[in-house]
Amino acid sequence: MNQSYETLKTYLERVYAIDAAIRLFEWDCETLAPKGGAENTAKIIGSLCSQYQEALIHPNLQQLVDSLKSGEGLTEAQKAVVRETGITIDKLKAVPAREYEEYSALKARAGRIWAQSRKMKDFEQYAPTLKNIISFQKKFAGYRTQEGQSLYETMIQDYEPGFDLKMLDEFFLKLKDNLVPLLKKVTESKKVIDNSFLTGDFDPEKQRQLADWLVGYLNMDGERSVLAVSEHPFTTSIHNRDVRITTHFTHNLTSSVYSVIHEAGHGLYELGIQDDLAMTLAGDGASMGMHESQSRFFENIVGKNRAFLGPVFEKICQLFPDQMKGITLEQFWEGVNKVEPGPIRIEADELTYSLHILIRYELEKSLIDGDLSVEELPEEWNKKYREYLLVDPVDDGVGVLQDVHWSQGDFGYFPSYALGNAFGAQLYHHMCRELDFEGLLKAGNLEVMIQYLRTRLHQYGKMKTSLSLIREITGEEFNPIYYIQYLNDKYKNLYWES
Amino acid sequence: MNQSYETLKTYLERVYAIDAAIRLFEWDCETLAPKGGAENTAKIIGSLCSQYQEALIHPNLQQLVDSLKSGEGLTEAQKAVVRETGITIDKLKAVPAREYEEYSALKARAGRIWAQSRKMKDFEQYAPTLKNIISFQKKFAGYRTQEGQSLYETMIQDYEPGFDLKMLDEFFLKLKDNLVPLLKKVTESKKVIDNSFLTGDFDPEKQRQLADWLVGYLNMDGERSVLAVSEHPFTTSIHNRDVRITTHFTHNLTSSVYSVIHEAGHGLYELGIQDDLAMTLAGDGASMGMHESQSRFFENIVGKNRAFLGPVFEKICQLFPDQMKGITLEQFWEGVNKVEPGPIRIEADELTYSLHILIRYELEKSLIDGDLSVEELPEEWNKKYREYLLVDPVDDGVGVLQDVHWSQGDFGYFPSYALGNAFGAQLYHHMCRELDFEGLLKAGNLEVMIQYLRTRLHQYGKMKTSLSLIREITGEEFNPIYYIQYLNDKYKNLYWES
Repeated sequence: MNQSYETLKTYLERVYAIDAAIRLFEWDCETLAPKGGAENTAKIIGSLCSQYQEALIHPNLQQLVDSLKSGEGLTEAQKAVVRETGITIDKLKAVPAREYEEYSALKARAGRIWAQSRKMKDFEQYAPTLKNIISFQKKFAGYRTQEGQSLYETMIQDYEPGFDLKMLDEFFLKLKDNLVPLLKKVTESKKVIDNSFLTGDFDPEKQRQLADWLVGYLNMDGERSVLAVSEHPFTTSIHNRDVRITTHFTHNLTSSVYSVIHEAGHGLYELGIQDDLAMTLAGDGASMGMHESQSRFFENIVGKNRAFLGPVFEKICQLFPDQMKGITLEQFWEGVNKVEPGPIRIEADELTYSLHILIRYELEKSLIDGDLSVEELPEEWNKKYREYLLVDPVDDGVGVLQDVHWSQGDFGYFPSYALGNAFGAQLYHHMCRELDFEGLLKAGNLEVMIQYLRTRLHQYGKMKTSLSLIREITGEEFNPIYYIQYLNDKYKNLYWES
Repeated sequence: MNQSYETLKTYLERVYAIDAAIRLFEWDCETLAPKGGAENTAKIIGSLCSQYQEALIHPNLQQLVDSLKSGEGLTEAQKAVVRETGITIDKLKAVPAREYEEYSALKARAGRIWAQSRKMKDFEQYAPTLKNIISFQKKFAGYRTQEGQSLYETMIQDYEPGFDLKMLDEFFLKLKDNLVPLLKKVTESKKVIDNSFLTGDFDPEKQRQLADWLVGYLNMDGERSVLAVSEHPFTTSIHNRDVRITTHFTHNLTSSVYSVIHEAGHGLYELGIQDDLAMTLAGDGASMGMHESQSRFFENIVGKNRAFLGPVFEKICQLFPDQMKGITLEQFWEGVNKVEPGPIRIEADELTYSLHILIRYELEKSLIDGDLSVEELPEEWNKKYREYLLVDPVDDGVGVLQDVHWSQGDFGYFPSYALGNAFGAQLYHHMCRELDFEGLLKAGNLEVMIQYLRTRLHQYGKMKTSLSLIREITGEEFNPIYYIQYLNDKYKNLYWES
């Protein structure tokens, strides 16, 4: 093996150990850690983050990466490790350490102020902090923005390399032109779907049994993954042989069910990453959008498919015979697919979800590249909700204050959610030509499609971009038309042809 | 505040962050981590351990410690932090890095070989590795041994600073002279104690409820501690506001009960350490023995006391009415205190436990300072078990191969267990003169004695040695006579005066 690469690998293992420790602490804080230890533990995590960054911007590492940039004598996986390490170093080095420290402190404060403001439904209290965050974000992006690029485009490419603003504008325009009328048609349909049986008193012990069963049903390898409980469901990966997902148990049965399926989608991606990439900076999903494509593919395209629901509904009936009394599989399928426009993104159904994202995309773009001021934000927010989603947020708590992202400086992140939906639909379209999709689901066979995804997508980690993966797997360029078609077919079936 | 100390503190916080990460990973491996991730995670832990050591032997840290050694302008807590940091650095620096690496690899192998040999009951397979470990240990101790000191004494002082061989010889001789005859008297007594009702089918869910209740009953602060399940019970502290204990659920009800009480003793010590010492190298128990004194005090002196058992037995009867049918508190108290000499240390009752340790002390001393060869070890082991404990190990699996310690190079560690018993008994003797010990237990009031221990002992961490703590708290030197008296009284009461 290349001697310099060997040295790089050894160095990266040290850096990764600290990264893994940060992930484990974060997992632990959300799942088990006693609340009274939070302050000390925050210090520990803060110190580990600093040490992680210092290790990455060490001159020795830069030298090693430079010496390997030609790629001579390296495998494709090794080239990806070198490239991703270089990208991360460049990003870190672009920002002066002192500014970064100031910004980190601001983010910590901003998180608390945001939570407080949301609780008080008081945007004014939050506005100065948000302005501050935006000004830092613009400054930082400015350090890295290329000629002819806008600041927002730079931000987007941190999450979705290969996408420029033009592509995203076209993408979101297509969504707007198609999904806003589709939603209107659905809400005007005479079809009444009852999903009241999904809410009620569901014993958490039995919900846990169902969650454990689902994890197995979705072929998450029990030797390499665990399921735990946290307030907000999430996935973390310590490495590709230790992947962890969480769920929560509420009065809504499907909240836990679809949390498990969604997080399992993320988890299967992490579990599928090849060993050559594991514990390096290339050992993660290709992009935020591609990661979301996997979670949303499982949550919606698989998880809300009638064929998939057959065996799942049977299990649910076993565990909750009283609550499911008199409910048919058809009613259950309709219930989990009911379209209900509302103000809250994380509670959105499959059709309205991308419209929530569309709104955020348009607003972010105006805030960063355009002339929308923070003061005008709530009004703009509500206006767009009325226009695209046909709902009127009753206050800023369920409006512009609902998401944590902006308080943490995550501008450019939201578009990935919608891209993930579209990636998933395009993969699905292609998959259906190769596999008997519904037949496999009906038979409870998930492994064939997981294998399809593992060999063509998961294993490559960051070796390929989302755009090249789509191209290589489907034989054509990324095209959101498949997503729109998929939604049109689905709701036609559900709302005016059944 | 002293500027140099401030710098030291900042540096130590970085070091501590890595130490805390190691502890969290170790906790996680025993409680939750998926088994299939073990190999990758071992690499991560190994890397963190190296980084921890490298940070400690960094020349900057040595300089800082040297500049602060005079103690000028420092509080007592700060002096302890400087002193303990210096001691740790000296210990690490004494061993050449290459030798330490070789030794670490040997230990990793030794752990596997030991486990395999124990399973196969095959000491011969293990002997060459053990020899190797001993020779490394002797070499390493040799680097640090002062004139007039033996190698074994150096090893002992890593665990029990302030104790020399002469003191330990006298201590163990006193145990032998008193406990061997006491055990003989007990086994010859006509009193028959039935404890069969403690073994059977105890629902793990209810055992968990009992464990949770006990943790609260023992005043472990639920805001700063958690209870989890692992194969072998243990305690870990991420810092003094995040302390974690485990238990396990078996067919023996008391196994979980006394695991919880024992680990809570360790946990209360860690929770009591003052904030000035937390997250430093002085923020731990005074010594191994003093830590064990706390766990054993709660397990035995408190936990097996008739007065304490009143409310606990009531709770057990509520949870396990069928199993406890017809059993009186008196029978329960007798049952948990039954003396049953056996070959296995970790299953030993309160009387025989220190005799297991006596045997290990005599053997370690002969192996390190004397001329006992590894080949002769099994025979010597069995001979001493027959002589002191009146039992004959049927094979080396339940004999010389039972403990993991020697495979990990932990020579000099065992004596701490027996010292802990004796420390606890001396503290108990003093406590009884100040507090209405049994009255408080009967009333379910644990807080008064925890407060006693917290203010006089726990809070000081490593600021004071075990010997000076005993002296300051009890007003006299360490004296094992209280331990012997305590056992004599206890078994007289139980076996020939009841």
